[in-house]
Amino acid sequence: MSVIYKDIDRVRDDTDRYLKKIVADKIDQADRLSTSYGELWHSIERLLFAGGKRLRPYMTHLSYSAFGGRDPEPVLRAGAALELLHVSLLVHDDIIDRDTMRYGVKNISGQYLDIYQNTRSQLAEVRHYANSAAIMAGDLLLAEAHSLMAVASRDDKVMDCFSEAVFAVCGGELMDTEAAFVDRPVDSLTIAKYKTASYSFVAPLMIGAYLAGASRNDAKSLRTFAESLGVAYQLKDDLLGTFGDELTTGKTRIGDTREGKQTYLVEQFYNLASEQQRADFMTVFGKSDLPDADYLLAIELLESSGAKQATEAKIDQLEVVIADCLETLSIDREHRLAMSDLVATCLNRDK
Amino acid sequence: MSVIYKDIDRVRDDTDRYLKKIVADKIDQADRLSTSYGELWHSIERLLFAGGKRLRPYMTHLSYSAFGGRDPEPVLRAGAALELLHVSLLVHDDIIDRDTMRYGVKNISGQYLDIYQNTRSQLAEVRHYANSAAIMAGDLLLAEAHSLMAVASRDDKVMDCFSEAVFAVCGGELMDTEAAFVDRPVDSLTIAKYKTASYSFVAPLMIGAYLAGASRNDAKSLRTFAESLGVAYQLKDDLLGTFGDELTTGKTRIGDTREGKQTYLVEQFYNLASEQQRADFMTVFGKSDLPDADYLLAIELLESSGAKQATEAKIDQLEVVIADCLETLSIDREHRLAMSDLVATCLNRDK
Repeated sequence: MSVIYKDIDRVRDDTDRYLKKIVADKIDQADRLSTSYGELWHSIERLLFAGGKRLRPYMTHLSYSAFGGRDPEPVLRAGAALELLHVSLLVHDDIIDRDTMRYGVKNISGQYLDIYQNTRSQLAEVRHYANSAAIMAGDLLLAEAHSLMAVASRDDKVMDCFSEAVFAVCGGELMDTEAAFVDRPVDSLTIAKYKTASYSFVAPLMIGAYLAGASRNDAKSLRTFAESLGVAYQLKDDLLGTFGDELTTGKTRIGDTREGKQTYLVEQFYNLASEQQRADFMTVFGKSDLPDADYLLAIELLESSGAKQATEAKIDQLEVVIADCLETLSIDREHRLAMSDLVATCLNRDK
Repeated sequence: MSVIYKDIDRVRDDTDRYLKKIVADKIDQADRLSTSYGELWHSIERLLFAGGKRLRPYMTHLSYSAFGGRDPEPVLRAGAALELLHVSLLVHDDIIDRDTMRYGVKNISGQYLDIYQNTRSQLAEVRHYANSAAIMAGDLLLAEAHSLMAVASRDDKVMDCFSEAVFAVCGGELMDTEAAFVDRPVDSLTIAKYKTASYSFVAPLMIGAYLAGASRNDAKSLRTFAESLGVAYQLKDDLLGTFGDELTTGKTRIGDTREGKQTYLVEQFYNLASEQQRADFMTVFGKSDLPDADYLLAIELLESSGAKQATEAKIDQLEVVIADCLETLSIDREHRLAMSDLVATCLNRDK
């Protein structure tokens, strides 16, 4: 049985070639409207091709191929649509998080801070207009993602799955944003499910399967597989953020602690720590202006309390669910192995 | 021949009933996810049903009916999708314009200023998070608009027309925003075409026609009709903003002058005014901190220079184009009269 999924580099190249054509057309059209509109699309192009592993399109290709899909066109479009959705969300999230960099380059707001820098004397004003351009860029990407998905498939299940993902990720994002400043009970696993798993794992894998016409039973198992993998991916991310090697991850280990990010790791700490450990933790957690070395105390406490181990145990538990689901899918050996590799890529990483 | 378009009040009621059901479902789903997500959808509901004449859905119904469309379902969906797109754009535009009110009630940012008011001590921080919630609300509305349009029709022409409208309005919005602070030549008719006519006139009328299977010739005439009507609508809006009766329009006559809004009216002033008139105008135009009475000088100059008359002449000229297009459409007398009434509603208004 021939397969149409390829390794992740091939999918990335195909997806990038396809997206480049779309964006080049938009730049042409926008330029005809006005130079400044062309500039906005150029800023989108720079961000879109600055990085990204295109893991989402890869998952769509893999799942499509595993369930017998053979037409390269719809899966290419659906994968590209998921990537556009992803970048749209990044652009708007970065406004919310007040970040101006992404993939090591300036994001839309960052690029527009430069473009607008001499138009206003007050930095706050320049920032406002730079963010305004980024709001529009995110809207354009979100609209294009939907248009492309509508071209990829006329199947209600595909469109519903895509809509559900957008609905879920906005809910997850709101909960995550509010967790930083609103006094409400937060459940980090729920946030991981909605903010990470929904559009980055469930939608890519399920849409591939629906496009290929997977059976009801397979769809059900694949959904649990994708949801568990997405949540485990997020927990692994939190662990790497705090205990990873800074040179490998490229991120400071104290970032989450300084921000006071409410991760599963921190939730486990609250469950397991002694009163004294908790009191010590609170002296540094979420405080933004301490010397870097002070935050290391919190990291040490996250380990000594057993929170790190509990998080690792949760990932192990999810891996069992993932493996069980994989077992039940009616796919051939080659695709099962590729799915296993995907799980390993997501969970046995060091960055 | 029976018709399915109804008067604007009936279309508004039908559209509202349909949209209410959609939003109620979303509130239920969001509530199951978290109270705070339910709250976001409640804030969307409050804004969505606070006002709006639903002129866009009415145009879609009218055009659909005129070209022989008889199935009430797709046109109801398409009209509702256009209205969701409209509100999505309003929500994001209001962030860009730093407005917190819309239709006489608090918009999403405005509502979230209240919800978050006690979570942060600095107003700038509360504002940032209120705008963040509004970014997400706009994204949700934009996504839902696309999903609904995809359900309304599988016709490529419909989806393309919808995508083009989003592409155009973002370009128009960018040009309009930049006109206030970037030193670039601005063409107000181009902005009116892209920011106003595209999604508020061309898309509603064309999508109705495409859904009904209108001929190529009719589609061509209808597009010119819609584009001209949209631009004329905007010029009329600018005139009312500066010369309208404040009690009737509910808006201050000095707003545009104080803001330094680059309208067609102002462009005509630059073309027609004497050097002295121009110098006088520049002492108040776009200055934000003068006594109200000072701006009246500019309004007087816009009239005495002949700019007001030139703008009225441009509207008259567009009305000729509109009437000519209407003449060529292969529609029955009843629909032609209704289209004429639509033109009158848009152009002979006093608010």
